[in-house]
Amino acid sequence: MPIMKSWLASANQPDCPFPLNNLPCGVFSHGAAAPHCGVAIGDQILDVTAMEAAGLLPLADEPVLQQPEWNGLMAQGPAVWKRLRIMLFGFLAEGSELKAQIEPFLHPQAGARMHLPFRVAEFTDFYAGRHHAFNVGTMFRGAENALPPNWLHIPIGYNGRASSVVVSGSDVRRPWGQLKGPDDAAPRFAPCLRFDHELEMGAVIGQPSQNGQPVSVAEADAMIFGYVLLNDWSARDIQAWEYQPLGPFQAKATATSISPWIVTREALEPFRTTTPAREKPLLPYLHEPGPMLYDIELEVELTPRGGRPQVIARTNYREMYYSAAQQLAHHTTSGCAMRVGDLIGSGTISGPERGNRGSMLELSWGGKEPLELEDGQSRSFLEDHDRLTLRGLCRGDGYTIGFGDCTGVVLPALSDPYAR
Amino acid sequence: MPIMKSWLASANQPDCPFPLNNLPCGVFSHGAAAPHCGVAIGDQILDVTAMEAAGLLPLADEPVLQQPEWNGLMAQGPAVWKRLRIMLFGFLAEGSELKAQIEPFLHPQAGARMHLPFRVAEFTDFYAGRHHAFNVGTMFRGAENALPPNWLHIPIGYNGRASSVVVSGSDVRRPWGQLKGPDDAAPRFAPCLRFDHELEMGAVIGQPSQNGQPVSVAEADAMIFGYVLLNDWSARDIQAWEYQPLGPFQAKATATSISPWIVTREALEPFRTTTPAREKPLLPYLHEPGPMLYDIELEVELTPRGGRPQVIARTNYREMYYSAAQQLAHHTTSGCAMRVGDLIGSGTISGPERGNRGSMLELSWGGKEPLELEDGQSRSFLEDHDRLTLRGLCRGDGYTIGFGDCTGVVLPALSDPYAR
Repeated sequence: MPIMKSWLASANQPDCPFPLNNLPCGVFSHGAAAPHCGVAIGDQILDVTAMEAAGLLPLADEPVLQQPEWNGLMAQGPAVWKRLRIMLFGFLAEGSELKAQIEPFLHPQAGARMHLPFRVAEFTDFYAGRHHAFNVGTMFRGAENALPPNWLHIPIGYNGRASSVVVSGSDVRRPWGQLKGPDDAAPRFAPCLRFDHELEMGAVIGQPSQNGQPVSVAEADAMIFGYVLLNDWSARDIQAWEYQPLGPFQAKATATSISPWIVTREALEPFRTTTPAREKPLLPYLHEPGPMLYDIELEVELTPRGGRPQVIARTNYREMYYSAAQQLAHHTTSGCAMRVGDLIGSGTISGPERGNRGSMLELSWGGKEPLELEDGQSRSFLEDHDRLTLRGLCRGDGYTIGFGDCTGVVLPALSDPYAR
Repeated sequence: MPIMKSWLASANQPDCPFPLNNLPCGVFSHGAAAPHCGVAIGDQILDVTAMEAAGLLPLADEPVLQQPEWNGLMAQGPAVWKRLRIMLFGFLAEGSELKAQIEPFLHPQAGARMHLPFRVAEFTDFYAGRHHAFNVGTMFRGAENALPPNWLHIPIGYNGRASSVVVSGSDVRRPWGQLKGPDDAAPRFAPCLRFDHELEMGAVIGQPSQNGQPVSVAEADAMIFGYVLLNDWSARDIQAWEYQPLGPFQAKATATSISPWIVTREALEPFRTTTPAREKPLLPYLHEPGPMLYDIELEVELTPRGGRPQVIARTNYREMYYSAAQQLAHHTTSGCAMRVGDLIGSGTISGPERGNRGSMLELSWGGKEPLELEDGQSRSFLEDHDRLTLRGLCRGDGYTIGFGDCTGVVLPALSDPYAR
C-alpha cells in the first residue's frame, strides 16, 4: 500500500506519522475551548466534532461526535467507522474540491492539549509476551520453571482499574504501599522503591458482546476499533508482597498511560502479521482465522531530569504470543459481556535480546544488573523526575503510521499521603 | 433504636423488612412502564423519580432521580443523602399531613420488576473473611499454611468485572471454560463442573476520591452510600487452572448477583459493630476510628428444581476480618481513584462451624464431603436448575431491616457456545 496523497503538504512527508493512510482518533482542545474529537492529519488536527455540528459530516441519523470521547462513534459499529474513514479521504485527498470547506476546521497540533481519547469502560491487562513471561518467570522461579503450566494454553490476564487510565502527558506520582522484603519481620507503609514501566499495546473495543455469549476469535477481531500505545506503570515491591494468591492489585493501580491517538484497525490492515509458531497446540476456540498481530516497531525512551533522551529498548508488537483478538475471545469464554470502550492491554512486549526488554525489571534483571545510561548514570528502576516515552511506528511503502508519543514523568511520592 | 411508625400499616409489622427505619433504594418497573428509582416501604415502593418530577421532592438544584439508577443521587454527597432520608420521614411518618399527597406514588412490591439499582462503575472483590480464607487455604495448602503470609496485614482483593454484575432474579448460565485436572495431559474446553456461589456483602461507593490521593479509613467510611447482598458466582475448576500467577479471571466473570435494594449506611448505623480482635497489629493506615462492621444475620437457601427450599448456611457479616472501610482505604493507597458507583465485595462470609460456610466449596470440603439435602439428594457443587437465595437481616428493637432476596437460578450450559 503506497502513500495516499493529501492536499495538506505536511501529511505527505515520508516520515510524518499522520499521513492520509492513518487518520487516528483523539480528543483535543486549544486554550480554554471545550475538548472536541479530532483526527490527526499531517501537522494538523481536523475538528470532526465541529464538522459534524456544522452538518458537514453526516455519519449517522443522530450526532455521534458531540461528546469529548470517541465512544459514541465506536458504538455505531464497523460500517460507520468505515464511512468516517472514506468521508475523510473525500475531504482530504489531493485535489478534493472540498478543501476550502474544511480548511477552517484544521488546527495545528502544536499547542493543542490532548485528552483521553475515549471513556474507558473497563480495563483488562494481559501477560501475553513470551519473552517477558519467560524473563520474569526465570527471575522468580528459575529458567526451568519460568513459564506457568497454563501459559502456553491460556492468554493469562487480570482485570485492571479503568479509573487509573490517563492520557499521555499526565504526570505519574510514585505511590505509597505495603512493602516487605523477604528478610523483614513485618511489612511497612512507605513509598515504592521499585517503580517501573511496561511497554504494551492496548486494543480499544468498539463493539459490545452479550452476557452469556462467548465470541470467536474472528468476531473478537471485528469488535476492535483500534490500538493505542500503553504504559502500565508498575510498583514491583508492592506487587511482590501483595500478589499471592489473587494477583496484582495496588501495584498496578497508580496509573496506566495511553497514547493520545487511537490508530484504527483499518489503518493497520496493511501491517497484519501472524503470531509466532505455537509451542503447544491451542484449543480450537483460540485458533486464528488469519493474521491477527501487527508489525509495529516499538521503542522506549528514558530522559533523566536535565539529561538527554536515551532509547533503552526496541522491540515489535509481532513478538506477542497471543493477539488481542485471541485475548478478547478468551475474555468472553465465561459469558463475560464486553462493552464499548473496554481497553485490553497486551502485556509487556519484550524481544529475545537484552535491548528488547519492555520493563526496567527485565532491563536491570530485577536490579541485579543496573542499566548504564549516558553521563555515568545507571538505573535499576525509575527515579523521580525520569520521563518515560513510548513510541510506535508502522513502515508502509513511502509512509509511516504513528500513535503520537505516550509519555509521563515520575513525580516524587507525597511526603504524607494523608495530609489534607 | 425502636421502630419508627408509618401511616402505612404494612411497614409497622415487626417482621416487615422495610419499616420506616430502612428506606432502601432500588429501581423498579411495572408492566411496560419505564424503570424508576423507588424506595421500599412496607409492602409498597415509593416512586421517588415521579415525586421529584412532580416537584414534591426538591433534593438539589438539578433533578437527580430522573435516570433509572441511583448514581445521580449518590454523586450529590452525604448531605443530600440525609436530606432524602429526612424528607421521606416527613412524608411517611405516622400522622403526616402529606399522606394524601404521596399515596398516588405508592406501588405494590408484588408484581414489580426490579432492575440493577445503580450503574456499577467498577467492581472489586475482596477475600477478607477469616474463616473462608482459612478453609480454602487448608484445602489447598494444609492447615499449617492456610493463610497466605500477607493475609493478616493486607485486605487482599482483586479487580472484578463490572459488566458481569446483575440484579437478583437474573438467571445465571453455567459457563464454559478451560479445565484441566492435575492428572490430565492437556486442558479441554468444556462446561464448568464445579459451579459455586459465594455469600458476600457489597459496599456501594457513593462519593469519588481523587487520583493520586489515598483516603483514610474514616474518609472511606463516609464515601460508602450503602450495602447490598452479593453472590459472586464462581467456577472452581476454571479458577484452579487459570489463577496462577495473576489471580482469578474467567472463573469470576460469568455473573455476580446483587440484592434489588441498597440499604443505606444511615439505616445500618444502629447495627455497627467492631471487627474481630487483630491477630497481628495492622499498619496505622488501616486503623479503624470506630466500629466499621455491621451485625447482619445472613443465610443461604438452596432450592433444587421441584424441591423445597433448604437453608444450607447461616452466618453474620460481623465475621469479616476487614471492614469495607478498611478495604476501600487500602484500595486507594496506590493513588487509585474511586468513582461514584464502585462496588466493593467483602469476600465470602463464613463462620467457624460447618453450618456457617458461605460457599459450596467449603460446605462440601472441595467435593470430598457432599452436603446432604432433604429428599436424599446431595450436593458437592451447584447443579443445573438449582435456585440460590441469599438473605440478610438486622434485628432492631421491634423491627427488622432487610435487603430483599438475592436470588438466581443456574441454567444449563449452552450446548455449543459458538452456534449462532
